[in-house]
Amino acid sequence: MLNTEKKGFTPIYIQIAQNIRKMILLGHYEQGDKIPTEDEIGNDYGVSRMTARQAVTELVNEGLVYRVHGKGAFVGRRKLERSLNKITGFHQDIKEMGLHPTAKIVSFNKRKPTEKECNSLNIRKINQVFAVKRIRYVDGVPYGLQNLVVPVYLVPDFNKVDLEKESLYSYLKEINKPLAYAEQRMEAVMDENVAKTIDIPETIPFFFFERVSYLEDQTPVEMLHSYFRGDKFSYTVSLSN
Amino acid sequence: MLNTEKKGFTPIYIQIAQNIRKMILLGHYEQGDKIPTEDEIGNDYGVSRMTARQAVTELVNEGLVYRVHGKGAFVGRRKLERSLNKITGFHQDIKEMGLHPTAKIVSFNKRKPTEKECNSLNIRKINQVFAVKRIRYVDGVPYGLQNLVVPVYLVPDFNKVDLEKESLYSYLKEINKPLAYAEQRMEAVMDENVAKTIDIPETIPFFFFERVSYLEDQTPVEMLHSYFRGDKFSYTVSLSN
Repeated sequence: MLNTEKKGFTPIYIQIAQNIRKMILLGHYEQGDKIPTEDEIGNDYGVSRMTARQAVTELVNEGLVYRVHGKGAFVGRRKLERSLNKITGFHQDIKEMGLHPTAKIVSFNKRKPTEKECNSLNIRKINQVFAVKRIRYVDGVPYGLQNLVVPVYLVPDFNKVDLEKESLYSYLKEINKPLAYAEQRMEAVMDENVAKTIDIPETIPFFFFERVSYLEDQTPVEMLHSYFRGDKFSYTVSLSN
Repeated sequence: MLNTEKKGFTPIYIQIAQNIRKMILLGHYEQGDKIPTEDEIGNDYGVSRMTARQAVTELVNEGLVYRVHGKGAFVGRRKLERSLNKITGFHQDIKEMGLHPTAKIVSFNKRKPTEKECNSLNIRKINQVFAVKRIRYVDGVPYGLQNLVVPVYLVPDFNKVDLEKESLYSYLKEINKPLAYAEQRMEAVMDENVAKTIDIPETIPFFFFERVSYLEDQTPVEMLHSYFRGDKFSYTVSLSN
């Protein structure tokens, strides 16, 4: 039942948490349902009660389940929690949760940049960009839509990358241009067109993110517009003084 | 026209930006309207063209206006931009934009904490909390609803604070318990009840924030649930690697 391929890298309690998370998100448990007790988890996975407890605590910390004193743990908010403190991509975040991220390319163009893209990416009208529109899925369910724009001069072979399976961020690492930082703006919006494109009800609100990411030498390398479902995601951030 | 009280503290170009921002948000300019040229701003305020340019750039940077080459600057997205990197409150953020924050108290109770409040605030059932529900306004327009919960033992005189005018955060500074950091979770939601309470259409999405703030000694001091209008606010965050 556990992902033995990863064993030795991912602590057992994280793997157990991944399994339970998956069952919650795939609907095996509904909101308010009781999840297995720590004793049951211990027996099912052949682990100590303490390890079982750690797995449940992991899910409690992200708000997916909550404990009721003396009664056990129950399914709470069924939203995936992503962090806003680190610059990570959809692909990596979803994989780390033990879920399966995929993408469907809606369009892929090589074209001239818009005025806004010139400003954000610090390029000229004569430069060209790759523009990719992708629907993002988690275990086959549409979770969002992304419009990615990258300058051709920085990633000339970008059209050879399999963007249904690989991420821009891992590709940038491969070609020795790792991301250093990003600036992101967030909105909460309704968007009929996006809802239609990814085939979900128009009554679901979206997070809209506008991200510009930079290389270590401060060169802007991507302008990313993302719509992610408000009913599927929540985001955390640490605030300092 | 400028706020002379603040002169010497707030740079002129910021004050000019505040004035134009206010006119945009109060509807003197609609989306797509041209704002005054840099020459006109220079004449109106008696400042150099460079200062006028700085003021417009300030508004461009926050996305409130955009420049069209050779044509001037136009009103874009009419949303207030707040930062997620610093722990600041509504009151302070709005004031710094040159706008007028107010609050209406919907309810104020001294009561026993819920189980969730006990966990988040690290208190026991026998402790008491102050719970305050406030509608937040910008220049008289409802922008959000907040539910604030603070342990009585940390702020015993909290019921004497004028929460329609003063903020918890400035009060905490006054009593020598300044905030050190906070953890915040964000959602994008629709909420009929909140929309009704603050008297706006039910079709407007909200940012929902769940914040727990801590003192320097790591004592949790507030649990804050905020609903802020998605059509009025956007949030920015810097992401690192």
